[in-house]
Formats: sequence, structure tokens, C-alpha cells
Amino acid sequence: MLQSQLFTETTKETPRDEKSLNAKLLIRAGFVHKEMAGVYSYLPLGLRVLRKIQNIIREEMESMGGQEILMTVFQPRDLWLKTDRWSKGIGKDMFKCKLNRSEVGLGPTHEEIVTRILKSYIRSWRDLPKFVFQIQTKFRKELRAKSGLLRGREFDMKDLYSFHESEKDFERYYEIIIKSYHKILERCDLRAILTEASGKGFTASTPHEFQVIAPAGEDTIFYCPGGDFSQNKEVAKLKAGDKCPICKRILIENKSIEVGNIFPLGTKYSKDLGAYFTDKDGKKKPIVMGCYGLGPSRIMGAVVEIHHDSKGILWPKEIAPFQVHLIQLQKNPKVKKKSKNLYNALLKTGTTVLFDDRDDKSPGEKFADADLIGIPWRMVISERTLEKDSVELKRRDREKTELVKIRELLSFLEKYVQ
Amino acid sequence: MLQSQLFTETTKETPRDEKSLNAKLLIRAGFVHKEMAGVYSYLPLGLRVLRKIQNIIREEMESMGGQEILMTVFQPRDLWLKTDRWSKGIGKDMFKCKLNRSEVGLGPTHEEIVTRILKSYIRSWRDLPKFVFQIQTKFRKELRAKSGLLRGREFDMKDLYSFHESEKDFERYYEIIIKSYHKILERCDLRAILTEASGKGFTASTPHEFQVIAPAGEDTIFYCPGGDFSQNKEVAKLKAGDKCPICKRILIENKSIEVGNIFPLGTKYSKDLGAYFTDKDGKKKPIVMGCYGLGPSRIMGAVVEIHHDSKGILWPKEIAPFQVHLIQLQKNPKVKKKSKNLYNALLKTGTTVLFDDRDDKSPGEKFADADLIGIPWRMVISERTLEKDSVELKRRDREKTELVKIRELLSFLEKYVQ
Repeated sequence: MLQSQLFTETTKETPRDEKSLNAKLLIRAGFVHKEMAGVYSYLPLGLRVLRKIQNIIREEMESMGGQEILMTVFQPRDLWLKTDRWSKGIGKDMFKCKLNRSEVGLGPTHEEIVTRILKSYIRSWRDLPKFVFQIQTKFRKELRAKSGLLRGREFDMKDLYSFHESEKDFERYYEIIIKSYHKILERCDLRAILTEASGKGFTASTPHEFQVIAPAGEDTIFYCPGGDFSQNKEVAKLKAGDKCPICKRILIENKSIEVGNIFPLGTKYSKDLGAYFTDKDGKKKPIVMGCYGLGPSRIMGAVVEIHHDSKGILWPKEIAPFQVHLIQLQKNPKVKKKSKNLYNALLKTGTTVLFDDRDDKSPGEKFADADLIGIPWRMVISERTLEKDSVELKRRDREKTELVKIRELLSFLEKYVQ
Repeated sequence: MLQSQLFTETTKETPRDEKSLNAKLLIRAGFVHKEMAGVYSYLPLGLRVLRKIQNIIREEMESMGGQEILMTVFQPRDLWLKTDRWSKGIGKDMFKCKLNRSEVGLGPTHEEIVTRILKSYIRSWRDLPKFVFQIQTKFRKELRAKSGLLRGREFDMKDLYSFHESEKDFERYYEIIIKSYHKILERCDLRAILTEASGKGFTASTPHEFQVIAPAGEDTIFYCPGGDFSQNKEVAKLKAGDKCPICKRILIENKSIEVGNIFPLGTKYSKDLGAYFTDKDGKKKPIVMGCYGLGPSRIMGAVVEIHHDSKGILWPKEIAPFQVHLIQLQKNPKVKKKSKNLYNALLKTGTTVLFDDRDDKSPGEKFADADLIGIPWRMVISERTLEKDSVELKRRDREKTELVKIRELLSFLEKYVQ
């Protein structure tokens, strides 16, 4: 993409009421625009990152047999009354709109809708297990939304629901999902701790959260540095300073970021909504269910909280908006022509490139923008580099620059960049 | 995709309150699930079609220099008060939710939000023109939503906004968009008529609609069969039976489907929200704007209204959920093995395939499902076809079947299917 065409620019200003570091950096770099507290629009660079995170999640969900659907934002009142959640638990935090003489809710989660859909198709044990997911905008009435993308009133969510003939089959799948979530988060360069959590109105059994250790998190967890034990403060029986019950190391406290959660749902929703199947012995049984959330927008915020320095963002390779930030330093015809040729050659190799072809910016401004935007590789082309038939390459997370011959660029890209 | 794994099935039942043909067929074939009047979830097959339509639109918008963003569903009340639309015009049909002591709206359109975003970045005539679009779920308070995907309370929408330094530049772009919309609709196998429409509270100047001639449309237009003239009933000065003022042919009446609309916005939003730029002479001027809507979900509904027969849907090639419906007729080990090998070989050629590998369905049931689902090519593999090292191919829109040698399949696919 030509940076001269991109409608966004970097800015030093952020909204006065914006306190969170992730939103401040994302606004300054032109990734998001704040519409109101906890409500952000995604601008071209931000949407590219969000889509990359969504695609990583999609790939992993599909590789486990997940089938993608797109359910509705609107939630019928009657359906939520059947599970007794319209005015209780999560239903209390649900936005509601008037429609004719009734009301509709805006989905903060989709157990009711997905159970009713699957109920139409599951009759026998032969139809189980089934795994259904969606990636969708969700809504929750947060009274104070002040953590940027970490806790929005309107946010992006992947929710997967699983349907099983037995608790045993559900448990087997629960373990597979835990591994898959760790894999997704590793691809986004985040390391998460699996933490026992409170039920939050979803279920009576123990759900788990994926917590990323970070200074700006909204949650407090107590965890053992060996990774053997961790609990959310809400349910913790042990505190910081206590010994880990497994490895005996001292527990540490952290204000952490919840990026995902997984809930055993048992048969609550299948019983409430009449989702039964016939088992091998011809007996009617309620379907055993699980629910698995993961927040792409929250992951985006968490990545910025973890991967930044005083100059800006440092995007991990797999979710960066572009692989290479190509910067043309001078605007004399020779440099401009060579830069444009190089840009087109890079595109032909399948490399994604943001090309800073702007004529009205100084080298200093261009470098500062590149640092703020945070693309993993900066590639500078100038009179000086062209004298040596080279470009200057620098990783965003390193100080060192190196000259690479243009004719050797392809193998360099294959080895390090792609 | 293996049909045995797909969680949906075809069904003969449709909800009692469902009157529209498009929704009935899409529900019976397992493409969508009705949650309430005018509110449908997309199941795996339906989501594949919706994504293909969205991608055609995205390609065409990007080819014209459109930059994709994703704005918020939530609309701040203060912002809509500035344009005097909160309780008037389209604002009257806006769903609204309480938040703290105020209210937020659910976006039926995004002039306010997009103008405020672009205002931050446009300062000079050098920053113009700019084209920004999104593909997003939108909401509108339809009192009676009874036309399936043609008029939803929750629906999918592409909205593009253009920003210009002059009316003249805007007009140039308006013509480009008209061509592009026709191209998008042709790729979806729809032929639309460009019709003069009423302002609908957006603007004072003349907007246009893209109307598809269909028996089940919600709009009435009067048009000349030569394509020289057409007007929506709302604004029509001429009626069916009158002569076309240009070619003198007799005007025809039709209950048509509006799939897109384009609006000259003038400087209403830029003036109301203070979006000014400095022109070449250093003078401050309000930005001239245009708005261009196109409904992917509405296109999906319109395609079903137009392309179906008594047995089911006939998807146009570019938006079909799969290119080939491979049907394994017998379940003896030889046919099963050959079918699976063929399925894998097809996937390797890049062909998308729904593979009916179900053991519990009769040939008659499989053929009926294939006709209802409507994939363009049906490929049958059976003992009989294998005796001739062949598969039987049939186009969904033709009666004729033909045997094609398996070793000649690749060139057949390249020529006709892909």
C-alpha cells in the first residue's frame, strides 16, 4: 500500500479521556478511532491486524473440525427467558432495545441461539460431537470502559460451542481446545497462563481463563512461576506469598489481561431449551455442551500492552499489518524510480509492503512514523544505499542496521521476513 | 467439505410465519436459520455464499482505490444531534439502547461516524479525493419484516463514502461507481436497473437505486424496456402505460428488489460536523461527499428469488458455496475408496467440493438434496460410472448428464467448472 494514499496519518494527540496505553498507541499510529468510551472503529492498518488475528483463530478452529457460522446480534427475549438469563447474570449487562411491544437484546454471548440452531439438526449419538464457532461483534454494558481494546462495550469475539454425548467426550475436547488456544496465542506472540475462574453466571462448574501477564491488565491473578497453579483473585483461596500447593514455590500476584475463557456448560442449556439426542441404547439424553471464547480485539490490545517501547508498537510477525515498511528517503527522480521498481518487485514476491512514498515528510518524520506504526522490518532506500546497489534493513526490535544488496534481497526475504 | 460432517441437513419444514420464497428455500437447504422476523443466522453453507458476495464487492471497491475500515455499530447520540437526525428521518427507524444516563443508537448508516473520522485526517485539497468503505452488520427498525433476506432488521451492508474538493470531482466518481455496481451485480448474475429515487431523509438532491426486476420485490418501479428511463413509484411522475420520454416505448410496472443505492450528500454532513479543507487558493471549504450502499445479504436473497426452480436453488458460479457437489452413490468399499481418492484429487486442483459421503441416504435423497442446495455442477460416482472409468456430470441448470473419463476430468474442470 502506498502511504501517500492511506487516508490516516500518525498524530501526537489522543482523546483527553483515553487513559489506556494500548488505545493511546493505536490511536496515535492511526490503527483505531475512538467513537466513545469502550467503542473503537478500525482504520485500514488496524483492520489488517484484526483480520490477521481472526484468520489465525479461524485456521486453528477449522483444523479441529470447527464449522464456522455467523449468528445474529439480536437475541429474542423469549429465548433468554427460557434459560432464566434475561434479567439475571450476564443478562443484566446486556444492552436491550425496544421492538414493537417487546424488547430484543444485543448478544454478549450466544448459548441460547446456538443451542436452538443445533437442536434442529442433532437427533442421534451419530450426529455428535459437533463444533460450531463464529467471529462476531459483541456487546456488553460496561459501566466504566477505560482499558482501550481490553474491555469494550462493543468488541470482537470468537465464540466456539461444542456438543457432546457425554461428559467424558466433552473433557477430551476441553483438553484439545486448551492446547489450541495456547498455539493461537503463541502465534500472536503472547504467553498465557490458564487460571481457575469464577462461574460469572454461565455455569456451576469451574471455568478457566487464559490470562496474559501484563502491567496494565484488568484482572488480578495469583500464580506460581513454575506454571503449576494459578487462580483468579475472585475465587482464590491462596494469595501472593503463599506456597504453590504443587511445587511449593511462592505465589506471585499480577494485574493480568484475560484474552480467553472456556466454560463447561454441562446440560443447562440443552435441558432449558430441549436439545436432546437418542443414545446408543435408544434413550433420550440432554446434549453436553462447552463454550470457548477468545477475543481478537482484546488480543490486539494485549499485544500492544506487551510489545511496545518508548517509540511505538512492535508487531509480532504473524499479525503485523505489513511485513515490510519500505521508506524512500529522497524525492529525486532516480531514488523515486528505483523505490517504485523495488516496491513492485517486492509485491511480486508475495511480500506485503507499506511504501512510504510521501514527498512532504523529512527522513526524521518517516523514521518516527515507522517506529510508531511498528512493522517488523524497515527497508530504507536512498542515494547512499543505491550507491552500493543496496537497501538498508533494520528490525523494529533491534538497533542494528545492515546493508543488503538488492540482488540478494529475495533470498534475504525468504530467510528472515516471510 | 464432507457432507457427513456438516452439521446442517436439508429439511421440508420452514417456520410458520415465514412467507418469503428466498428465506423458505435458504432455510430448507440449510443456508440460514431464522431467529426472529427479519433476523437470520448464517449457517456454514450460507456464510460461504455471503463471504463470496462480500469478496466480490471488496475486490471491486479496492480496484477503485477504496480503503476498507470497520466502523462501530454504536452511534453516539451527541453526534447525531449535530446533524439533526437523532429523532428525525432515518433516526426514527434507529434502534436505541440506554447507556448510563444517555442513549446509543445502532447504526443503520454511518455518515456521522465516517465524517468525524475523516475530518481528523483531511486538511488540504492535496488530501482529496478519498474513498472509504466497510462491510458490516447494520440495524433498522422495520415494523413488518416479512421479505426474508430482502429487508432485515439486522442485515449485512457495504457502505462506501467518498470525499471530494468539488461537485465536479464527485460527479466523475459517481459515474465510476455506477459502472462498478453493475459489474458487481453481473458477477452475482443479477441485472439491475438504475432508478431515480426519493431522498429518504439522506439528502435533498436525487439519489439513485439499483433495482433488480423480480416478482417478489418490495419496491414498485416504472421502467422502459429499452433501459432509457426508470423511476421509483415514490417519486414517479410517469406511470405504467405512459410513454418513455426518451425512446417513446411504453413504460412497464414491476414489484422490484432494491439491492443498492447511491446518494449525493453535498456538504450537509461536512458543514454540520465541521469537516473543512483548504483549497488551492488557501480558502476554507466544506468537503463534498457521496454515499454508496450495497447489501450483500440482500443480494443473496435476490439471487435466490431470481435463480431457482421447483426443486431448489441455482447458484451463479461466482457465489456458489462450492463449485462441485460430488455424490458417492453406493457404499461398497470400492466405490467409497474411489470416491475419496477423487475428492482428494479435486481438492488438489483447487476445486471447492461438497462431498456427499453419507451412508444413510438413498440416491433419490442425495439427488434431491443436491437440487435443493443448488451447487452449479453435480458429479456422480457409482459402480456404473466406474465400470467406464468415468464420473457422471450434470449442470444444475440443465437436464442433460454426460459421462467424463476420470483421466480427462482435470481439463474438463479447467474448461467449464473453475
